[in-house]
Amino acid sequence: MNLEMRNRIYNQAKDWVLQAGMVIRKKMAEPLEIETKSNRNDLVTTMDKDIEYFFVSRIKQKYPDDKIISEEGYGDTLGSLKGTVWIIDPIDGTMNFVHQKRNFAISVGVYHEGIGEFGFIYDVMADTIYSAKRGEGAYKNDYRLPKLNSEKQITESIIGMNHFWLCENRLVDEKVMQQFIRTIRGTRLYGSAALEFAYVSEGIMDGYISMSLAPWDFAAGVIILKEVGGEIYTATGEEINMLKKNSIVACNPSIKHEIIDKHLKAGRK
Amino acid sequence: MNLEMRNRIYNQAKDWVLQAGMVIRKKMAEPLEIETKSNRNDLVTTMDKDIEYFFVSRIKQKYPDDKIISEEGYGDTLGSLKGTVWIIDPIDGTMNFVHQKRNFAISVGVYHEGIGEFGFIYDVMADTIYSAKRGEGAYKNDYRLPKLNSEKQITESIIGMNHFWLCENRLVDEKVMQQFIRTIRGTRLYGSAALEFAYVSEGIMDGYISMSLAPWDFAAGVIILKEVGGEIYTATGEEINMLKKNSIVACNPSIKHEIIDKHLKAGRK
Repeated sequence: MNLEMRNRIYNQAKDWVLQAGMVIRKKMAEPLEIETKSNRNDLVTTMDKDIEYFFVSRIKQKYPDDKIISEEGYGDTLGSLKGTVWIIDPIDGTMNFVHQKRNFAISVGVYHEGIGEFGFIYDVMADTIYSAKRGEGAYKNDYRLPKLNSEKQITESIIGMNHFWLCENRLVDEKVMQQFIRTIRGTRLYGSAALEFAYVSEGIMDGYISMSLAPWDFAAGVIILKEVGGEIYTATGEEINMLKKNSIVACNPSIKHEIIDKHLKAGRK
Repeated sequence: MNLEMRNRIYNQAKDWVLQAGMVIRKKMAEPLEIETKSNRNDLVTTMDKDIEYFFVSRIKQKYPDDKIISEEGYGDTLGSLKGTVWIIDPIDGTMNFVHQKRNFAISVGVYHEGIGEFGFIYDVMADTIYSAKRGEGAYKNDYRLPKLNSEKQITESIIGMNHFWLCENRLVDEKVMQQFIRTIRGTRLYGSAALEFAYVSEGIMDGYISMSLAPWDFAAGVIILKEVGGEIYTATGEEINMLKKNSIVACNPSIKHEIIDKHLKAGRK
């Protein structure tokens, strides 16, 4: 992808993300339409699908050779990341969307020949966009995010994780994880994988672990997090696969060993 | 407390809360002062104490007969809630304050002869104030919060709670709590008790449970939550004591039975 094309697609993608956010905010301000829906879940499905269609229709029209991986089924079924691939979650954090009417995000990552070129995580209701172009840094709106603190200690770390890590589960001995949360400074849980990637990138959390995420949940986050020096692995410390579900450890590299080797791998089932 | 005095103190308290927030935002925008502190914890203690002193000095000067319960030691040691008592947490969510530079709150509750008269929870960085006057409703900025949904089901509920509920603990069998989180729709953890009370009041969470909170953590939240029909108990379903630490269940009353009787009491140690 040459520089001019790269800039053009980046700007186009960012425009679409911001426009889609405007569409969502406008629809959320229409209480009548929401309240007349008999089933709240219908509304969600409709919004998810509408926004996905918003992206897919525009990409197909403007970049007909590009491929799309997305949650709601308008995309393609891909066996590889050849060419240019857009990986899209129209609404990441659906439960927050339904119950909180905020704290959800549009997540769009653009890959070229398997390499993450740019990513966007748009906190729609806060009107805050996290973005990155490979090699050119990550931004929160117009503010360039600094590199992660390379001296972060595990005992001073805040980790995003859900409560199921502390219950009997298929990945890791819950007793080891119970020890883990006594080792770190604190836990948080916001309910949007994309936003939790953004928060790790911003350094307001030091890691985020999930038992299972789909490519559209982390495609943008991976690109943004790498730009500030963050790293992404599976729970066993392996490279993630962009074409399927993965367990995920997204973290400041200075605590990677403590999270993966000393806990997730040590307690592996 | 007569109506005129009530309105006067309410307006004065709200003014002070907003002013204190401005002081914090101003100090947080002074990077030099922050970065030259050798120990980040010193800074926190300083800010906590400064803001508490901000309130205590003004209250003592303007309302010399009033009493104060507060976290940092400028207040009084009280054996009862006789007269007018201000219960203050200058910075609730200290870990968020340090690590995130947002998602913390000023919490101020004013009690008269043991009855909660008004409460303020101020999300300082978002400049969002939750407030309530007893009997006159609760507000998020100028928006009056509606009554909580009286038909909320436990299976559709989002509960704020930390991860220690799922570990061996002194209050409740962790296996019962592991069953609990499989019963509800989702969990969240934001790291500020005051804000979590505000979110339950707003209906974006349906309950918040904590193993141990001090009066300054919940004094304002109790007043705000009651105004939308929410209820507050200890983990065993008893009335909370405003003069000491309590376990806390703050919730939509339609799920109280499921949280307390079916889980916290059923699994009680």
